[in-house]
Amino acid sequence: MADIRESELKSPVDVAEYLFTRLHQLGVKSVHGLPGDYNLVALDYIPKVGLKWVGNVNELNAGYAADGYARVKGLSAMVTTFGVGELSAINAIAGAYSEHVPVVHIVGTPSTLSQRNGQLLHHTLGNGNFNVFADMNKEISCAMGKLTTASDAATIIDHTLRECWIQSRPVYITLPTDIVQKKVEGERLRTPINLEFPENDKAKEDYVVDVVLKYLHAAKNPVILVDACAIRHRVLDEVHDLIDKTGLPVFVTPMGKGAVNEEHENYGGVYAGDGSQPESDFNTAGFSYRTSQLNTIDFHSTHIVVRYSEYSGVHMRGVLRKVIQQVDMNKLSAIKGPKMENKVAENEDNSETITQAWFWPRAGEFLKEDDIVITETGTSNFGIWETKFPKGVTALSQVLWGSIGYSVGACQGAALAARDAGSDRRTVLFVGDGSFQLTAQEVSTMLRLGLKPIIFLICNEGYTIERFIHGMDAEYNDIAAWHFKDLPKVFGGQDGTYKTYQVKTKAAIDDLFMDEHFNAADCLQFVEVYMPWDDAPRALKLTAEASARTNAKQ
Amino acid sequence: MADIRESELKSPVDVAEYLFTRLHQLGVKSVHGLPGDYNLVALDYIPKVGLKWVGNVNELNAGYAADGYARVKGLSAMVTTFGVGELSAINAIAGAYSEHVPVVHIVGTPSTLSQRNGQLLHHTLGNGNFNVFADMNKEISCAMGKLTTASDAATIIDHTLRECWIQSRPVYITLPTDIVQKKVEGERLRTPINLEFPENDKAKEDYVVDVVLKYLHAAKNPVILVDACAIRHRVLDEVHDLIDKTGLPVFVTPMGKGAVNEEHENYGGVYAGDGSQPESDFNTAGFSYRTSQLNTIDFHSTHIVVRYSEYSGVHMRGVLRKVIQQVDMNKLSAIKGPKMENKVAENEDNSETITQAWFWPRAGEFLKEDDIVITETGTSNFGIWETKFPKGVTALSQVLWGSIGYSVGACQGAALAARDAGSDRRTVLFVGDGSFQLTAQEVSTMLRLGLKPIIFLICNEGYTIERFIHGMDAEYNDIAAWHFKDLPKVFGGQDGTYKTYQVKTKAAIDDLFMDEHFNAADCLQFVEVYMPWDDAPRALKLTAEASARTNAKQ
Repeated sequence: MADIRESELKSPVDVAEYLFTRLHQLGVKSVHGLPGDYNLVALDYIPKVGLKWVGNVNELNAGYAADGYARVKGLSAMVTTFGVGELSAINAIAGAYSEHVPVVHIVGTPSTLSQRNGQLLHHTLGNGNFNVFADMNKEISCAMGKLTTASDAATIIDHTLRECWIQSRPVYITLPTDIVQKKVEGERLRTPINLEFPENDKAKEDYVVDVVLKYLHAAKNPVILVDACAIRHRVLDEVHDLIDKTGLPVFVTPMGKGAVNEEHENYGGVYAGDGSQPESDFNTAGFSYRTSQLNTIDFHSTHIVVRYSEYSGVHMRGVLRKVIQQVDMNKLSAIKGPKMENKVAENEDNSETITQAWFWPRAGEFLKEDDIVITETGTSNFGIWETKFPKGVTALSQVLWGSIGYSVGACQGAALAARDAGSDRRTVLFVGDGSFQLTAQEVSTMLRLGLKPIIFLICNEGYTIERFIHGMDAEYNDIAAWHFKDLPKVFGGQDGTYKTYQVKTKAAIDDLFMDEHFNAADCLQFVEVYMPWDDAPRALKLTAEASARTNAKQ
Repeated sequence: MADIRESELKSPVDVAEYLFTRLHQLGVKSVHGLPGDYNLVALDYIPKVGLKWVGNVNELNAGYAADGYARVKGLSAMVTTFGVGELSAINAIAGAYSEHVPVVHIVGTPSTLSQRNGQLLHHTLGNGNFNVFADMNKEISCAMGKLTTASDAATIIDHTLRECWIQSRPVYITLPTDIVQKKVEGERLRTPINLEFPENDKAKEDYVVDVVLKYLHAAKNPVILVDACAIRHRVLDEVHDLIDKTGLPVFVTPMGKGAVNEEHENYGGVYAGDGSQPESDFNTAGFSYRTSQLNTIDFHSTHIVVRYSEYSGVHMRGVLRKVIQQVDMNKLSAIKGPKMENKVAENEDNSETITQAWFWPRAGEFLKEDDIVITETGTSNFGIWETKFPKGVTALSQVLWGSIGYSVGACQGAALAARDAGSDRRTVLFVGDGSFQLTAQEVSTMLRLGLKPIIFLICNEGYTIERFIHGMDAEYNDIAAWHFKDLPKVFGGQDGTYKTYQVKTKAAIDDLFMDEHFNAADCLQFVEVYMPWDDAPRALKLTAEASARTNAKQ
């Protein structure tokens, strides 16, 4: 397509300005990423439209941070450069795809002219093929927005951003150096992008509601199990209304942790079992609880499944709304379920040692309303099952994708998102020493931005989750012994902008958790928590054993 | 295919043992990578066959390290886990593909049973598609070895490793958890893998030799320009014989730096110009010197190009050998070229400040025979053009792929490769502060392994190469101010295993370079070299300007 003549535009704006303005409209206030020669001119537009540039330490960390930002703020954006930059981030994007997180990945590419001529540029494979990296992103992006002319750039941008929001998954936008400053119609910016999910077909929706109600009314002791999609596809209000209306016991899957107000009297804790859909192994303790589909009603963003019948093309929101309205309490068998509590006293063992069993319920008592809690794949993701959250806690973890190191980047993004939202929510990270080493330098970004997370670093000398799967004392599960608490200073932390702690006993944890200044979280706080190397949360041990069995099965 | 019955095997060995034994036979003594639940059982075989496990801090670093190891030792191997691990490393593998480096990437995957059943496992996209990540690797691997049964595993392994060596590019091997311990015929291991390149067709080779000689004899003032493929496809002996026999002036491209004995009287330095093929922009100073193909004879691993005529299917080695034998010195117009020297005095400026112009020639005087020199993309890769190497120096850089952070990982791999080869060659790294931050934690691996590189960290407050392309004082080209020299200690360095230095003047550099202990390199040495933030090597300025022009061209 030919470019639009500038004189035909009522209110011409540059493509990059259009794109970043749209992101701003969608609630993005900070853009993650790294500079690279193919994106530099585009980066000039970020402050111009009122956005802040994060400037991460590497692209993988930037991707994790963007993921964390999106989980708190609703959507995020990251800018990388062609080839080297985007590929360094691809694991983070795959994770966001796997876990339904809406990240807009903008890649600065060589000019369309260079691409057409197949120039042997740096950051290429040297074979003139400029599509290789975009092709790699196809399977992990819900929409691809390749900008190649000004004439369709605005339409492509709007469509791609809408898909990102609606499908709640990453999108990939390529911005060639010669397109950045091409002009598009700025008038379009007066009309926000339509983010409405299409309404369900009414007849179909009513039909499904009838089926759901029929089986719900017939069910013996039904329970509500909330999984991650309820968070990502934004139906938590409906979920809470359903709980309040029905009085049914409610559980969450590991991925759904944080979806439900855990102070609600019906909340029974994490249930990695029957009916937990999707049945990922780490989401169901290694498939150990998998049972028949016969007794489940699944609500999804694109379909509903009642027992073995699938009803496609029906979004759960409309169905849930009507189920809430129409459920007949006289027909419902609502029996009181267990009540989740932080079992601290029950896990006292008369030793000074900080055990996993004791720590996680104790941490639950430390957390406060509206905290953002991030847990790393490994001991933390399993330990948190034993932690009861106060009301309003947002929980971030990567249970399905499970990339170690994720949580450190995500913590930066989450803390920034909270600040960008104008809130004073605390951001609390739990991460093991092995995982932390992969992405440690993102603490430097937190310090540079003046963020104030509380970082609990579980020092237990290695990859504990791997130990429990295979090779308990194998060398490959060991890590280098770092002086972790000296890192904030090395990473440029100024006096007063951070505090570090080392805690090695239950009493020291108690003291810290009761310290008013510590609780105030008025600077970055980095806490080394020492636990035995061969200790693990109960759920991790169980899942690891099941995982080893699955791996070995012939 | 059905698996072989174990009773039919003369000398059964497990698939993992077979694979690692083959790698050992190919000169790999250490295996890079990280543990992950899908590769743990396979890792048990590494010590069993006499290999050492490196245990990197993250997968991208592991990939860079494997690249560095292969450039020094001839071939390398890396093990990652499915999805999360392999994707974190993919940028490094793309770089190795782009730059023709033979890295064997082994990915531990879920069991073939889980894959057939499409189980919703962790580290997947949750859609039952287990081929997505392998597909991403197709375009950046010269062979794919997917092991799915024992019956063809040995054949696939041998074929894949041969292709890795012959094509000098990465290969991708998937090792499912249930295949690791399947039995294959161990007798095969008595016969080494055939690594011979197929001989050229004699008639064709003779024909090409005649054409080459005709144009070589007719050429006015011909020069030899040596590029990276001469290193990667192992024809440096032929190159040196050609230089000695013809007495022609010899230059190297930026990527070819280190290919030629720079103490040779015919050596004229880096020439980023006429006839430098492949004509990457960073390999030719932004295409600024590109001229006609009319006057060039190109030697490649798969073909020869004489002027505009391409002769495919002819490897350069055979042709070079015959050209050396048959060249008629009476017909050759060999005119003395310029002689490369370290221009230290010429770049004195009567200031204390360490300038880029002064530093690089001065570093040339510090280097000694057989050093391994690694330069990072950015100032170092361009500065090194002004450095004359002593004889026997091996140079590592990533001029075409240009992924910042590469050199830190590569340094670990290179230093380990030198030690594994039983040599006491020094490993010397030049890296800027911006690039260093991306992969800094690999210094921890160097310390843990007891490696003793000399690391020159150029402290100039940001992404200097990007500044010169666009945004000289833009915030996005700034970085966090780290206390770099405290990192070795934080990363677990014990007293006596490392030394740190800060140098801020020319005199301090002189002192350091003349210090006997420093030169002895008997522990890891970490040197902060302070240079002005707005200084850059001449060649970088030139290339950056050209790059900005190319980016902007409509």
